[in-house]
Amino acid sequence: MSERRIDRLTSLLRRRGVVLPSFEIYGGVSGLVDYGPVGARIKRKVVDSWIDHWTSQGDIVEVDSPTLTPESVLVASGHVGEFNDLMVSCNSCESAFRADHLLENVHQNPDSLSVDEVSSLLSQGISCPACSEAKWSDVRPMNLMFSTRIGAMSRGRSAYMRPETAQGMFMLYPALFRHFKQKLPFGAVQTGKGYRNEISPRQGMIRLREFDMAELEYFIDPESPPCPELSIWSTPVMMVPDPEGHHAGECEMTYEDALSKGIIRHPTVAWFLARTMDFLVNVGVEPSKIRFRQHSGSEMAHYAEDCWDCELHGEHGWVECVGIANRTCHDLESHERASGSKLLRAWRQYDEPKNEVKDFLAPISAVIGPAFKGQAGAVVESLSQLTELPENIPFDLELTDGSSVRITEEMVTRRTDEVTVHGEWFTPHVIEPAFGIDRIVWHILDHAFTETEKEGEPYSVMRLNSRVAPYDVAVLPLFDKPGMLKIAHDVITRVNSVPGRKGEMDSSKSIGRRYARVDEIGVPWAVTIDHDSMEDGTVTVRRRDDQKQIRCSVDELIDTLSNGDLSTMF
Amino acid sequence: MSERRIDRLTSLLRRRGVVLPSFEIYGGVSGLVDYGPVGARIKRKVVDSWIDHWTSQGDIVEVDSPTLTPESVLVASGHVGEFNDLMVSCNSCESAFRADHLLENVHQNPDSLSVDEVSSLLSQGISCPACSEAKWSDVRPMNLMFSTRIGAMSRGRSAYMRPETAQGMFMLYPALFRHFKQKLPFGAVQTGKGYRNEISPRQGMIRLREFDMAELEYFIDPESPPCPELSIWSTPVMMVPDPEGHHAGECEMTYEDALSKGIIRHPTVAWFLARTMDFLVNVGVEPSKIRFRQHSGSEMAHYAEDCWDCELHGEHGWVECVGIANRTCHDLESHERASGSKLLRAWRQYDEPKNEVKDFLAPISAVIGPAFKGQAGAVVESLSQLTELPENIPFDLELTDGSSVRITEEMVTRRTDEVTVHGEWFTPHVIEPAFGIDRIVWHILDHAFTETEKEGEPYSVMRLNSRVAPYDVAVLPLFDKPGMLKIAHDVITRVNSVPGRKGEMDSSKSIGRRYARVDEIGVPWAVTIDHDSMEDGTVTVRRRDDQKQIRCSVDELIDTLSNGDLSTMF
Repeated sequence: MSERRIDRLTSLLRRRGVVLPSFEIYGGVSGLVDYGPVGARIKRKVVDSWIDHWTSQGDIVEVDSPTLTPESVLVASGHVGEFNDLMVSCNSCESAFRADHLLENVHQNPDSLSVDEVSSLLSQGISCPACSEAKWSDVRPMNLMFSTRIGAMSRGRSAYMRPETAQGMFMLYPALFRHFKQKLPFGAVQTGKGYRNEISPRQGMIRLREFDMAELEYFIDPESPPCPELSIWSTPVMMVPDPEGHHAGECEMTYEDALSKGIIRHPTVAWFLARTMDFLVNVGVEPSKIRFRQHSGSEMAHYAEDCWDCELHGEHGWVECVGIANRTCHDLESHERASGSKLLRAWRQYDEPKNEVKDFLAPISAVIGPAFKGQAGAVVESLSQLTELPENIPFDLELTDGSSVRITEEMVTRRTDEVTVHGEWFTPHVIEPAFGIDRIVWHILDHAFTETEKEGEPYSVMRLNSRVAPYDVAVLPLFDKPGMLKIAHDVITRVNSVPGRKGEMDSSKSIGRRYARVDEIGVPWAVTIDHDSMEDGTVTVRRRDDQKQIRCSVDELIDTLSNGDLSTMF
Repeated sequence: MSERRIDRLTSLLRRRGVVLPSFEIYGGVSGLVDYGPVGARIKRKVVDSWIDHWTSQGDIVEVDSPTLTPESVLVASGHVGEFNDLMVSCNSCESAFRADHLLENVHQNPDSLSVDEVSSLLSQGISCPACSEAKWSDVRPMNLMFSTRIGAMSRGRSAYMRPETAQGMFMLYPALFRHFKQKLPFGAVQTGKGYRNEISPRQGMIRLREFDMAELEYFIDPESPPCPELSIWSTPVMMVPDPEGHHAGECEMTYEDALSKGIIRHPTVAWFLARTMDFLVNVGVEPSKIRFRQHSGSEMAHYAEDCWDCELHGEHGWVECVGIANRTCHDLESHERASGSKLLRAWRQYDEPKNEVKDFLAPISAVIGPAFKGQAGAVVESLSQLTELPENIPFDLELTDGSSVRITEEMVTRRTDEVTVHGEWFTPHVIEPAFGIDRIVWHILDHAFTETEKEGEPYSVMRLNSRVAPYDVAVLPLFDKPGMLKIAHDVITRVNSVPGRKGEMDSSKSIGRRYARVDEIGVPWAVTIDHDSMEDGTVTVRRRDDQKQIRCSVDELIDTLSNGDLSTMF
């Protein structure tokens, strides 16, 4: 037995097929992990719960875009220029390091230092962890994206594996705007792989080179942001406000209080904090190990107006697992500027129409009607909404359904007039909660991992919430006998036919060792088939968390499972 | 309206947020697609159905491994050497082409030609499709993997984005073997992204550079392959046997017949053909548009013993959507050779123990017992199962749980003796069904897309199977009035609280346009809230496929939805 709890947990995860190092028979690759048969189910249930949590109200939908991303998109988003870690190598032994890792003991927030500051601190006697010399190369920014090329040879184009799923959702903004019938607010979620070419990954599942992300982009009108009712969350939560702000040091409070005091700076951000907490608790994160930490001005991206990390506490201390940011109009505006697209805006209807002097293209109905037939109305509408008039006619006019039509000289007249303006186009703001799924899975496992004793021997139980347990029930025939196996198969088939439920059968080894295994992988209920089952159709149901057992019929078991939770039988 | 059905379908998919070109505001990247709000749900339901289909019997589990793959793994698998397309460029205009595409009209199976054969055929007057010249460069193989580097600069290592999910499952074989308590047969599934750097992608969703795969590796003992009962599938299916074999030209037959005639060469392969057909029909592929085509000897990978493509027919003709292959022991043996791992085997117990003269390491219990305590039994077992004795002692002995222990001189004696041998280690064979999810989604949409007329105008209905419809019901308040909206919200909330069900609300525009939209995205049921709903709590339920309507109470609606299918009400 290892001395450290984290080592015992890691060893259990590996032994039981939860999380394992990848490519191990080839010596492994640091920063990559495999989810085995048990872990893949836990992760899938966490992701499914996440999607369900956000999409159940109808204003948020799921989309799915590629991981390969052309360079132009990531130049516009800032990742090509700014997604860097400072790195330095040892001139003596050639080992490469992240500069901030070397400075962890000499500076509180080494991540925030400039190249010059890092060089200066390194030269004050920091020695190489590998060879103990202190001869450092120049400090250089290293881009953290995995780069590749799309297409053949000289005709190929530069691309990267996406560093976040968010950009794909910004690309889909025009389709989302159509889907939601041009009405804000609305949101999109995307789950899937993100990539970050860490210089020296450490900390197991916390710092991966390829990871599962789950991000949400919520598009709002900044002049009328959604202000959901916060009073339904009455339990105070742990907050660490901006250390440079007026409220530094405060901690327990409700979302409503934090918003009214101006600590949380935006009502929609407050609402996402609350909903994030709900999700984490639902999938089994321990509430006392959750806190929200606000970024200070110097830590926050220049365009963001309010940023919070949701941190979870576990074997690695407090770890950022969710970032919730008011990204304002930064992303859509950057893409509008870089791509020239006119489709990244929304329409704001004025309460009262205004009169303005304006250049416009007046449609000539006698030409447009016959030319476009059923589409004519859409053409007239799009003409009236042109924000900039084209320099030359003919030109291509984009319609709101994404198609475009050719407008020629005889279809329009250029006019200047006082016109009644009913509204305006603007760039929506975005509130983004971004979740690191692997880090959340790690903390769910960490918080569930319970070490006890049984008959004088160490005994481990993974007290997973039933929402994310790998199986709902384990079915265990007491002996490997045809009669018992048949009943066990029947029970499994009936369990699996209940929507959303899945059971696992195990007929190997002693019943004690099988109980130990299902306790270690976190199955909440074990159903044992014994001699009596063959006589009277009853089975034993054992609860993982207190090992209490009751006897019931198979019908009763299945009924209870179909209508809720087996705990109602205890 | 476009003249071609495929263009009308593609335009609908784009307009309704099902499938769209990726990165379109930046000019797009061919071979990449986005799934919009409607398509992402359809794809997720197809993938979920697939996982459920294969994992419901307990012998197959899901795993999840990285897409980034180090070079050594893909050298061993053969992808670095052999995953190529022949390419050629025009010396006149510099356009690059896949050589087999240029030869489609002059050879039946241009994919199978060698470099010399291709060069020779090109020189016989094939001209460049771009500039019409006939000056060709040398024909060269181009590797189709996206390459990248893991880690920083000079210390980085070569890697590729995985061309298939299969290799990750072979890497996890030791964990799977443990999970299934060292007993064959068992299988693993994995879904996720695969990558193929096509030279010139064509055909929309058929030939993508990044695609969704779903693969299954089923590990068996070749001496006792699973032979499931095939007689339960009594309907003949369309087969196209090996054109070079004795049964060329035969077509309609049952799996049982095809196996007994020797057309299907392996009983487990026959079973996977049958289960593949079941899956496809379950998610809405039209049975008359499914056929199984057997590879000929020259088309089949050198190690494979029997390969079948499951082809679906649609707007692109017959397209391979699933490949089912008996890959024998090829993959695990290649990885054993390349990695030196001893963990890629299974144990076969003899019916009768055999006597053999054998070198072995006899454990010295008096030392091993105290040294390893509870593990001593496992150490003795692993010693007895060593296939090759180590040249030097001390050495590290791997135990079946994946851990290893140090064996020193005083723990063992080297002996030669006649021993009783109870079994042997061997490399399992693998049967692999590999599914292309995007191609399957395309054919589901193609087969569901139905063009009719309504009041003299063209009218489209997507007759999706309810298992893969984006929403179970659409809830449509007749007018955008508070009373109706409230009822609609209540209905949606109740629908969404039924496990596995999801509804969508739409209160925009006229009821006719909303019906048209839900018909186009394939929602099977529309529930309309009208004035009477506010009086008596009843709603109208409209069936997509025949537009028949009935009236029922909201309670009845929810009950029926909870217990099965709304069609029982009609």
